[in-house]
Amino acid sequence: MRKMFALFLSLALALSLAVPAASANAAPDNQNRKDNLHVQVVLFDGFDLLDALAPYEVFTAAGMYSGDKVTVELVSAEGKRSVPSGLGGPSLEAKSKLDPHQPGIIVVPGAAGKPAGNTPDTIPNLLWKAKQTSLTSMIKQAMNDKEVTVATVCGGSLLLAMDGLLKDRHAVTNPIGMAALSAAGAIPVEARVVEDGPRLVSGGGVTSGLDVALYLVERELGPQIANAVENLFQYEQRGTVWKAEGTAPIDFFKNTAVK
Amino acid sequence: MRKMFALFLSLALALSLAVPAASANAAPDNQNRKDNLHVQVVLFDGFDLLDALAPYEVFTAAGMYSGDKVTVELVSAEGKRSVPSGLGGPSLEAKSKLDPHQPGIIVVPGAAGKPAGNTPDTIPNLLWKAKQTSLTSMIKQAMNDKEVTVATVCGGSLLLAMDGLLKDRHAVTNPIGMAALSAAGAIPVEARVVEDGPRLVSGGGVTSGLDVALYLVERELGPQIANAVENLFQYEQRGTVWKAEGTAPIDFFKNTAVK
Repeated sequence: MRKMFALFLSLALALSLAVPAASANAAPDNQNRKDNLHVQVVLFDGFDLLDALAPYEVFTAAGMYSGDKVTVELVSAEGKRSVPSGLGGPSLEAKSKLDPHQPGIIVVPGAAGKPAGNTPDTIPNLLWKAKQTSLTSMIKQAMNDKEVTVATVCGGSLLLAMDGLLKDRHAVTNPIGMAALSAAGAIPVEARVVEDGPRLVSGGGVTSGLDVALYLVERELGPQIANAVENLFQYEQRGTVWKAEGTAPIDFFKNTAVK
Repeated sequence: MRKMFALFLSLALALSLAVPAASANAAPDNQNRKDNLHVQVVLFDGFDLLDALAPYEVFTAAGMYSGDKVTVELVSAEGKRSVPSGLGGPSLEAKSKLDPHQPGIIVVPGAAGKPAGNTPDTIPNLLWKAKQTSLTSMIKQAMNDKEVTVATVCGGSLLLAMDGLLKDRHAVTNPIGMAALSAAGAIPVEARVVEDGPRLVSGGGVTSGLDVALYLVERELGPQIANAVENLFQYEQRGTVWKAEGTAPIDFFKNTAVK
């Protein structure tokens, strides 16, 4: 009798596992889903490896699981060249020149460096140097193109803000840069991922690049590919993606001295 | 009166914030803490970018915050060379040859590729190819050196297991490789980070490399540096680090047909 019960239990378990597995294989609803998504990850001198490569690898895995519906390339404002990462880290080869009008997604990472100080290897100095290149003017063109989504990670938001590109736009950056983001005219939002509108998405500190990319994979290709990448990477999207919609919470500190 | 109350509240808040800040600046207890920690991250053809670079960047940031108490380098079994990552990704320059007897930590990443299939770009094939190099025999030497901790991420555990290096050792790898890890003679443990002994630490899927590195930073340099890196990266260690100590949980499935 106990054997029968164990057998029944194992059958029930097998069935309960089989049912969600079957529905997980259901044909995806392809309405509003992209057939092809191209992603350009922009490198600049002193860029942060994880800011750039976490989204790179999420989009690459999404391409693998979708039968190459996603293509990803490393680019730079100057074209094909070897680009050194920050803090004396390894260089990565940008394969081609950033095309601000290529439909798809452009990912702008932040810089890797000391959080503050007067040496050339600080994050503010590296971002300032990047602002002197043609990168931000190219991103400005991209932000005016309806076929392009610009996604920033960490200091990438600051880089855009420094050139006035985030004026009155909702955005997030690494916590250590939130005051600077505000000073540069953006509206800082404390969230892991902020979607100001469909074509401007920003992420907080370094690892939020995983969340920015997973969110965009889900938005563009649907939840099944995002879920497959999550399983492979053993990482689940964190935090609510903040959007300028729905009921806004009451600001209890408004008009008080304490903030 | 209400103004007075608000003032009092703001003072109390300021004090409550100031007290933990002060203790956070307490001089660290340097007992059992390393003055210098050298980390070698090993690259091989088809390696996974995040498996290698997430620990690389955690250790680099730990070096930055500790005034260069941590040094990190990319190495390969063959010496200085450009090493291509998997899935057609960018190459990274290994700066020197892996030294299995250099005191410190050796990080072994997994491969990036299709999870299964018969093509050369599958993870099992890439790991098999890496096993044909001198890498695993060098890691074997490292595992016999009391001054070296070997840390694997994702498929890195499988690479070692394939060459018999994890026989009867507790370890974890990506969920898709757990059966293979067991078949290769290791004792698979379902945890994000597994410490078989102080000198063998393994991590699960891709992003668990962050947890492996943060755990080792905490172990070697203490909690303050690990916490600083967590804040900068906006990532907190996940999961209990499994160790072969303490009370073991009852295995309720032991001796039953259902497992």
